[in-house]
Parts: sequence; C-alpha cells; structure tokens
Amino acid sequence: MTNRLEYNDIKLIDHLKELFPICRSLTGEGTRKTLEYFEDYHKEYQRLKFNSGSKVLDWEIPKEWNIKDAYIENIDTKEKYAEFKKDNLHVVGYSEPVNKEVSYEELLTRIHTLEDKPEWIPYVTSYYKKYWGFCMSELDKKSIKKGRYRVYIDSTLSDGKLELSHALIKGKSEKEILFSSYICHPSMANNELSGPVVLNALLAYVKKEFKTPKYSYRFIMQPETIGSIAYLSKYADVLKKRIICGFNLSCVGDERNYSYVNTPFANTLADFALRGALNHIEDVNVYSFLNRGSDERQYCSPGLRLPICTFSRTKFGCYPEYHTNADNLNLVTNKGLNESYEILKSIVMAFETGIYPKTKIIGEPQLGKRGLYPNISKASKIHPAEMRMNLIAYSDGNNNIFDICKIINSNLNSVVKEYQLLKENDVLE
Amino acid sequence: MTNRLEYNDIKLIDHLKELFPICRSLTGEGTRKTLEYFEDYHKEYQRLKFNSGSKVLDWEIPKEWNIKDAYIENIDTKEKYAEFKKDNLHVVGYSEPVNKEVSYEELLTRIHTLEDKPEWIPYVTSYYKKYWGFCMSELDKKSIKKGRYRVYIDSTLSDGKLELSHALIKGKSEKEILFSSYICHPSMANNELSGPVVLNALLAYVKKEFKTPKYSYRFIMQPETIGSIAYLSKYADVLKKRIICGFNLSCVGDERNYSYVNTPFANTLADFALRGALNHIEDVNVYSFLNRGSDERQYCSPGLRLPICTFSRTKFGCYPEYHTNADNLNLVTNKGLNESYEILKSIVMAFETGIYPKTKIIGEPQLGKRGLYPNISKASKIHPAEMRMNLIAYSDGNNNIFDICKIINSNLNSVVKEYQLLKENDVLE
Amino acid sequence: MTNRLEYNDIKLIDHLKELFPICRSLTGEGTRKTLEYFEDYHKEYQRLKFNSGSKVLDWEIPKEWNIKDAYIENIDTKEKYAEFKKDNLHVVGYSEPVNKEVSYEELLTRIHTLEDKPEWIPYVTSYYKKYWGFCMSELDKKSIKKGRYRVYIDSTLSDGKLELSHALIKGKSEKEILFSSYICHPSMANNELSGPVVLNALLAYVKKEFKTPKYSYRFIMQPETIGSIAYLSKYADVLKKRIICGFNLSCVGDERNYSYVNTPFANTLADFALRGALNHIEDVNVYSFLNRGSDERQYCSPGLRLPICTFSRTKFGCYPEYHTNADNLNLVTNKGLNESYEILKSIVMAFETGIYPKTKIIGEPQLGKRGLYPNISKASKIHPAEMRMNLIAYSDGNNNIFDICKIINSNLNSVVKEYQLLKENDVLE
Repeated sequence: MTNRLEYNDIKLIDHLKELFPICRSLTGEGTRKTLEYFEDYHKEYQRLKFNSGSKVLDWEIPKEWNIKDAYIENIDTKEKYAEFKKDNLHVVGYSEPVNKEVSYEELLTRIHTLEDKPEWIPYVTSYYKKYWGFCMSELDKKSIKKGRYRVYIDSTLSDGKLELSHALIKGKSEKEILFSSYICHPSMANNELSGPVVLNALLAYVKKEFKTPKYSYRFIMQPETIGSIAYLSKYADVLKKRIICGFNLSCVGDERNYSYVNTPFANTLADFALRGALNHIEDVNVYSFLNRGSDERQYCSPGLRLPICTFSRTKFGCYPEYHTNADNLNLVTNKGLNESYEILKSIVMAFETGIYPKTKIIGEPQLGKRGLYPNISKASKIHPAEMRMNLIAYSDGNNNIFDICKIINSNLNSVVKEYQLLKENDVLE
Repeated sequence: MTNRLEYNDIKLIDHLKELFPICRSLTGEGTRKTLEYFEDYHKEYQRLKFNSGSKVLDWEIPKEWNIKDAYIENIDTKEKYAEFKKDNLHVVGYSEPVNKEVSYEELLTRIHTLEDKPEWIPYVTSYYKKYWGFCMSELDKKSIKKGRYRVYIDSTLSDGKLELSHALIKGKSEKEILFSSYICHPSMANNELSGPVVLNALLAYVKKEFKTPKYSYRFIMQPETIGSIAYLSKYADVLKKRIICGFNLSCVGDERNYSYVNTPFANTLADFALRGALNHIEDVNVYSFLNRGSDERQYCSPGLRLPICTFSRTKFGCYPEYHTNADNLNLVTNKGLNESYEILKSIVMAFETGIYPKTKIIGEPQLGKRGLYPNISKASKIHPAEMRMNLIAYSDGNNNIFDICKIINSNLNSVVKEYQLLKENDVLE
Repeated sequence: MTNRLEYNDIKLIDHLKELFPICRSLTGEGTRKTLEYFEDYHKEYQRLKFNSGSKVLDWEIPKEWNIKDAYIENIDTKEKYAEFKKDNLHVVGYSEPVNKEVSYEELLTRIHTLEDKPEWIPYVTSYYKKYWGFCMSELDKKSIKKGRYRVYIDSTLSDGKLELSHALIKGKSEKEILFSSYICHPSMANNELSGPVVLNALLAYVKKEFKTPKYSYRFIMQPETIGSIAYLSKYADVLKKRIICGFNLSCVGDERNYSYVNTPFANTLADFALRGALNHIEDVNVYSFLNRGSDERQYCSPGLRLPICTFSRTKFGCYPEYHTNADNLNLVTNKGLNESYEILKSIVMAFETGIYPKTKIIGEPQLGKRGLYPNISKASKIHPAEMRMNLIAYSDGNNNIFDICKIINSNLNSVVKEYQLLKENDVLE
C-alpha cells in the first residue's frame, strides 16, 4: 500500500478500463466492488446502507439483485446465445431467476433488440416489475432458428442492501460544493463509468491542492434515482442548508460537445458557473430542466430546489450509443475525461480564489507602475491588458466571477488566473 | 317562471339574437331593457343609477337619450331614406330631435357613409357635442336625388339616468375575479352583444358549478367609458382592495384569432392567465396597453392600475365590420361565443383548483405505485406522463399555474385537469 | 466687461475657433488659458490645483509640461520639418527638451506617421515615460532626404501644477446632475474642444433658464483620466452622495450618428435619460461599458459606480479623423454642436419639469372639457392626442419620464412639453 500510486497518478481511462467489466446494478456485489475501488483511493468515503423494503421519501428500497450467469441454450444443438459471461448487457437488469424450457415463440418475446441498430445490444432493466428477459443484437436474434430452448438466469432477488458512498472534505466554510455521480450501470463506459471516474479525480485534486480549502466539498456515488432518493432521505436538510453549488456528473467521457441541464429557473451559482466555465467553447448545448433525466431530478425537485446542474459531454439520451453495448471504450477517451475534469476543476479554482472579486482601489488602478500594463504593439488589435482591465471594471464585490466571464466575454480559467495575479498585486481583495 | 330554462340551457347565439334588435346607447330604454333581460336570469344583479349632470370622477353623466323614430323623407315623392325602423344605425347616436325641411346640400352634409365600404352603414355617435345626423350606405346615399327633403328624428335628450348592473358571487375569499362588459351599442353583434352574452354564461357557470367558490366573482354590465367611470366613482376603493384578476369582454363572438390587451406593464395575474389559457393556440394577438380602447382604459388608469385585461377574438378596430351594420349575425356564431366562454371558464377553473400548486413530497413522487405512470409504448416519442411530471417539477408553491403553462409548454385546461388528478392522489397540496 | 456678450450669445463654433489654436496638454499654460476662457464667462467656476508629485488615489500628479517651439532642421539646407508653430501636433505630447544633431537613421525612428492615412499627422503622447519625438504626415516624412539633422524641442518638464475647474449651480435639491468634459488635447476640434464648448453652453442655459433650479448642477472641465482621478481624490464622497445622473461630454461636435457609452450595467438614470432623449433618432450607437475610454472609466469604476454615461456623436476611436490633425474645423460644425446641446438640454428640461409624472385624476381625465382633445380629422391615421393620452396612461408616479419615452415610443423633448401642458391643466401633478 505504501508504494501505491495515488488516484491522479493513473490515467483516467485506465481507471475506467479497470472497472468496465463489472456488472453493476441498483444493488449487489458489482456495485459494492465499484464503490470499494474508489474507497481504496479515498479513505474519506463513508458507506451508507439501506435495507431492502425500507421507506425512503416517497419510495421503497428494492430487493438486492445478484447474478452469476445467464444464457439461452438450444436444447438440441447445445448452442448458446445471449451469454452473460460474454456481455453483461445480455440479461435484462433485475431479471428474476429462471431455468426452464420455453417455446421458440415465447423465447422471441423475451428477447429485446434494436431493430434500427442491428449490431448493438440494448440495455434494458425492470427494477420495479418482476420480469426476466434477454437483450441481443438484432443480427444475433435472427440467427436463432426454430427449435427447443432453455432459458437460464442464475440470479437472486432477496432482502439485502442498497449501498452508496459519500465523502466530505471540510473547508473553512461550512458552505459546500457538491459533486455527485452514479454507479448502477453494467458494462457501459460513458453512461456511466465516466462520471465516477472524473468525480474521483476532482476529489483527489481538492485533497491535494488545498490544505484546508475555503469551501467544503461533498462527493457522492450512488445508484441513480433510488440512490439519490435514499441519500436525500437522510441528508436533505443538511444539503438544503449547506450546498451553494453542485454538479451531477453524467456521460462526461466522450469528445463531443459539452452540455448541461439548467436548474428549474437557470438562476443558481451552478448554472452561472457552467456558463462561465464553458463561455469560450463553441456549440455548448444548454438544456432546460424540461430535459432533465438524471439525479438533478431529485436534487432540484420542488421540495428541495438545490443549486445543482447535470454536467455532460453529450447528454444521456442524446447520443446513438446511449444505453447500448456501443457505449464502450471506443466512445470514451482519456482526452474526453480529462477535458471534463479541467472544466470542473476551473470551477473549483474559482471558488477557492473567490467568487466575488472586489477592487481595493477607488478609480482605475495605475497598472503601469505594477508592471501589469504591457507596452502596446502597434500591429495588435486587441489590447493585451483588455481582459485584465475589464475584470477590474466589474470587480465591485457584487458580481460573481461566473457572470463576469459572460459580461467581459472571457473564459473562467483565464479570468481566475488574472484574478489571482491581481490579488497578488494588491489590486483586488 | 318555474319552468323557465336557465341561462346556460339556451344557446349563446339565441340570447344574442333576442337582444340584437334593441337600440342601446349610453342611456335610455334600450339599455334598460337589455339589463333587464340578463337580470331576469340572474337575480344577483343589482342596478345602479346615476342622475344626468352628476359628477363622476373627472366626468359628468350626460342627459338620457331616447328615440322612437327617424328618417329622411323626400317631400315630393314621400320616399323615405335612412329609416330608423329598418336599422337603428341609421341615426347618429345621441342625435337631438329634428323635424324640418333641409336643402339637398345641407342634407348631404348630415349623412355619414363609408366610401371604401359602399354597402355598409357606419355607426356614429355624438355623445358630448349637440348634433343630429344620419348614417347610410354609400350606395343608398347616392340614390338620393336632388329635391326637397324633410329630416325627422323623434328623439328626446333630457335629465334622466345612466344605469348599469353588477353582481357579486361571494366566495370563501374576499379576493375577487372580475368580468366586465358593456351594453351601450345598438344593433351590432360582436361589438357589443357578444360581451354581455358570454359574461352571463360565466356568471351562470360560477353559480352552478361551485356552491361556495374559493374566490369571489364580480360581474359588471355598463355603458362603455362613462359607465365604468361612474362605477369606479363608487367602487374604486373596493376594487383596488379586492380584485386580483379581471377581464373586460369585448368582441368575443367571431371565429377569428384570439387577442387580448395587456395591462400597462403586462405583469398581472390577468396577463399571465390569458397567456396560459391561450398557450396552445396559434396566432394569438397580444396587444400592448398602447392599443387599449375599451374599459381597460379606466380599470388600468394610473390612479387604479387594476389587474384587468381586455379579452377579444378580433379586437375592436381590428376587423373590417367593426362599427358597421356588417357586425351582425353573419359575423358572430355560437361556436365563436362558446370558444371564448371555454377559455375564460378554464381560468375560473384554475382559480378554483388553486393557482399556486405545491408538491407534498420531497424528491420525485413514485407515480407508478399510484397508477399515474403509464407503461411506455416503444413507438411513442412523447412520454404520456411527461406533462404530469413537468407540472410536479414546477409545483413549488411559488409559481402560478399560468406561468407553469408557459414553462412546461402546455395549455391551461389540461394542466388544471392534471393538477386536480394529482391533488386527488395526494401528490400536490 | 459690461457690454460683453454672454456665452450663449456667441455661436458655439466661434468659441471653438477661438480656442482651437491653443496647445493644451495634461498641464501647462495652454490648459490654463483654456480654463480661463470659460471662467471669464462663468464666474461660478472654481479652480483646483494639484502639485506635481502629489498622490491622487492610485496615481501621481505628473510634472508640468510647457513648450515654446519645436522642429527638425536639415543642418545643411536649413530646411525645417515638423514645425510646432505650423501645427502643435507635430511634437509628441510631454516630449522632454532636446537640441542636438541626430543621424538620419535615428531621426526616422523618432517620427510617428500614419501609413494608411499618408496626409494626416497623428496625435501621440508619452505622459508617463520620458521620451521625445515628432509626428508628421507620411508624405512629409518621405520628403526628408538623407542628410544631417538637428532636432529641437524647446520644452520644460518641471514641478508645477495640474489644474482643473468646476462649478456648482445650487438648486432646491442637493441632488446633482453632472456634466463633465476634458481640456487636455492640442489643436483638435471634436476630440476635444467640442466637449467643453457644449458643456459651457449648458452651464449658461441652466443659469439663465432657472432662477433656482429644482436640482443642483455640477460642471467639471479637467485633463482626461489624471484630472478626473485628481478630482475624485477630493470629491468622490460628495459625488457618491449627490450625483443622480451625469454625462461626460466627448466628441460632440460632428454631424454623424449619436452614440453613448452605457454605465457598467446600463441601469442608471443617465442610461435611461439618453435612451429617452435619443428615442426618436435612427441609428444611435449604444456602446456597452466594455467600450469605455474617457472619464466614465473613473466615474463608473467599481469603487464608485456613479450614474454617468459618456455622450458623443461618433465616439472616440470610432471615426477616422480621431487623434489626427484631420479632427479639425472641417469635421466639427455649429449644427453638430448645437444638436448635441439640444439633446442634453432636453434632459435638463426633463429634470426641471419632473422625472416622475403622476396623474391627479382617478380614471381617464376628460380632456375635451380642457380643450386638450382635438377634433379628429377623418383622414389622419394618428390620433393627435394619442401621445398625450399615452403619457397620462403611464404617469403613475413610479415610471421615470425617460422610460415612459421608450414605452410610448416618443421623444423626450415632446414628452416633456406635453408634461408641462398637462401640469398647467391640472391633469398631472
């Protein structure tokens, strides 16, 4: 353990590769193993457990689901189809156990495919309705000939636990920035492993960069929907009191456009922070809360209205590989993961530098005497100190730095760096 | 009387047909008869009377005008023109009595026509300047040959009363929703009979549908401008204290576009209510207060600023038949009247259901266990519970249901019905 | 002195012509002479003096610069170039004294030209870095042949004073309207003489038109940037307490478009006043505070945030002649100066008439009985009393007259005149 690399010493994509094969779901061993993987790097995590059947807000914790194997077998030829061991998407999530002969006709009704994407296996679950079934590519399904078939799912559905982990890095202020992601999907890369992989990089960054940060930082990994509902059943009051800005990380690993889902009225620090951080990037997709779909549904629900946006590259449901086996390591890249990490890191940097810059000087400062007003090259059309002077012009202590980015049309990363320089030079507080 | 049909048992267009022939004006028997017609159905009405010459706010009640007959007669041929008995628009409203021979030249100066609409008779009045005159179609005017003519107007202008009626349906709250319309135009159908005909349908609906409504409802029928000024001279303080939303009904009987006149700053419940109620309808014409012209001029005047919009199909002044004899039963239809009634009824329904929906549940409710989350057909692109979930997502007790309609892009009628369902299922308060 | 004409008895362009030849700079005799010229007309001015080297806010008062003569001389032919006496732009502002032979090559490095405008002399200064140099047209520079040259600048840079003048016309209210302009440029007409010339016309107007005005009026003439910083070092607290609206006058003498620079959030009376005053004019250029560049930089800096806009015809930096000798009496006209004066005068008129019009009447006033509701000509499409009635409709005491101009789509000058008429007729307070 002493020689072990720290989390951010390893490429993000390598973390993802390590975790990719595990079969996760709302509950069960795969999810537990995934939590343990991150907990091994970050001792700050605490595990929370909820018993099956217990009430959480308006919901009930489901049974724990575990699965060892599953396939369809031609009784005569012994040929196997939809083998769980080849791809864990082959079985419908939360399938009850089954081991029996079925007619060819019944078999077909139990097989889910994507007719318009005949080579891909869809991802299907049935959490709240007893069911069993298989998922296959349309091509594979067509290869199943008439005959006698045995369907075999070696799963268990029994009273157990729903588990999740959270970590709190305490800062000087009790006010918190939250990062949340989910760990309930089997072998898919963008939705979902990208989320927890980047979230843990941010946790490592906050721990390493700031001895005691200005703000507190909360990190949550949980099964989507029922996990956040369970979490809120315990922590709603704490979050309402403390969270000033937060992000749910979902599908953050591809290299396509950035996007985010605004809070219901697009009027919180989280909305402003993402707008600022993505200000310099073209073709950012900003979705209204009507397009919600991940844990922002719970965080922003009318009884809570937490200032939390979902941050994505291409949003869930908006890319063709979503919820199929094509959401894999061809789609997610180390570059994609890193870029998402950098965007969120710039927001952390902004909070730690200060989000309400304020000048110390009446009138404009004399930048020249501080060496902050470079000589102007005649050829250049853009004043090199223009952004610096604009930042000062709006640093009245009332405008947050994210809005300033928009006003002065500059990106958060550069503005924060200027802010730091101007603090060092005693121009800004 | 015991067997008599109630107001809403009769088609709206039939009420209008009954009242169409009466010659109304600011004052006089025709107006009195019109008020009586509605009072017969609704005993809640109370008559208010103002004496000629009395001061009302900045104005003075005019003399009472009554008219029995009027025409132009060729003294030689005895041929008659502009006969009041054939169309009461033939005489200029508030014409003083006259019975004398006039020269052909003078006669022509006393005849008002519409040169660009040669078949229509214009509607002209001279309330505040002593005058007499006739209105004719341009074609009829041209048929008047040189000759000796007698002009005959058997009218009286004398001290009398200006009368209006109002009804208050008391609800649990003293807060009031107001409906106002006017009864001062002779035989024209859209402007004006459509207004009071629909207003009385709403009065009938409120009485029948709600034993004791949540809000109080005020209904006013009055001569336009001077009537509302007279009314406000007595009730301005009451209205300022109580009215939270109101509508002036004008030209609500044709089947063309809907339109409304915003309050001066388009920022009251009345503006929001109409926007919500018409949200799903294309080509609604929303006019700024600069385009005012009916009793919203008084209700929204700077000393009062009541939250009252004028609601119309095609607005006064914006359709060719306006203020002519072509504004008749060819223009107004039962369908047109009913559609206007339904729009306003949906607003009443919204007020009675509640205008600030609020969830009872932290996090999203589990709709499935309540049978409110239908199974999703794969073919459908629109989630059947989407509007339901969106309504819940914005039901935080701070957003009025009219704004929610706009936010979630749904029409008021459906949203109110969902709201009622969610109240029954204990999801919303 | 007794027979002397008052300031506004002389054409504005004639004032400008009188002052044009003087060589002004941040300090020195030319600037002093310019201040004296205006002080002679307006005894209300008080001179403020700041010693070289003294600290003002974040800055330091520079040395005083005076200049008697300057030229380049061909030692052999005695031919002279860049003669200060022919055009004071020929010498770089704040050039230190020099009198020596220089090589042809060195000489060329000391000559500033505009390559893309070969006939114009640029205006260059070096206030804060010791330097000497010349400015010439590119054509003249090309005529300098190889040879031996003497450069001669008979200037002094020594401890002295920076001077500025301000005048306060006290009104009934301590609240102030501010007009500011600058007097630090040599012979250029639009930038800068137009500013102080129009400013003094406004001072003359306020003194003459109002015995004791409703508001107080402050007028400042100062060297740009360092002058306003010096002024604010003494008066920041007074201005913060009293100024409710103000304008920095810059480049107000040409006949091109009007333009102005908004305050940082475009949300002060100054922004609204200019929007209202220019409401009827096409192609007004409204610049955000990101395009600042004159003394609004100091007035609106984050520690002050005074409600002051810079008002211009074509803004500094936005016209080709800017900062060249082509910014002369061909560019600035009496018409241009007068139009700017009229715009600002209409704002003074608005403040003196009252900026929150309020009706005295509940409901609409009866304009007819006051002779304020003209008979309507049938042909006209625009109601002659339409603007009058619209003004009344928005005169609720909460809307300032500048916003009303925008709402009712009318220009400030006409609206203020209507307001005065309606006050006389007891309709508005």
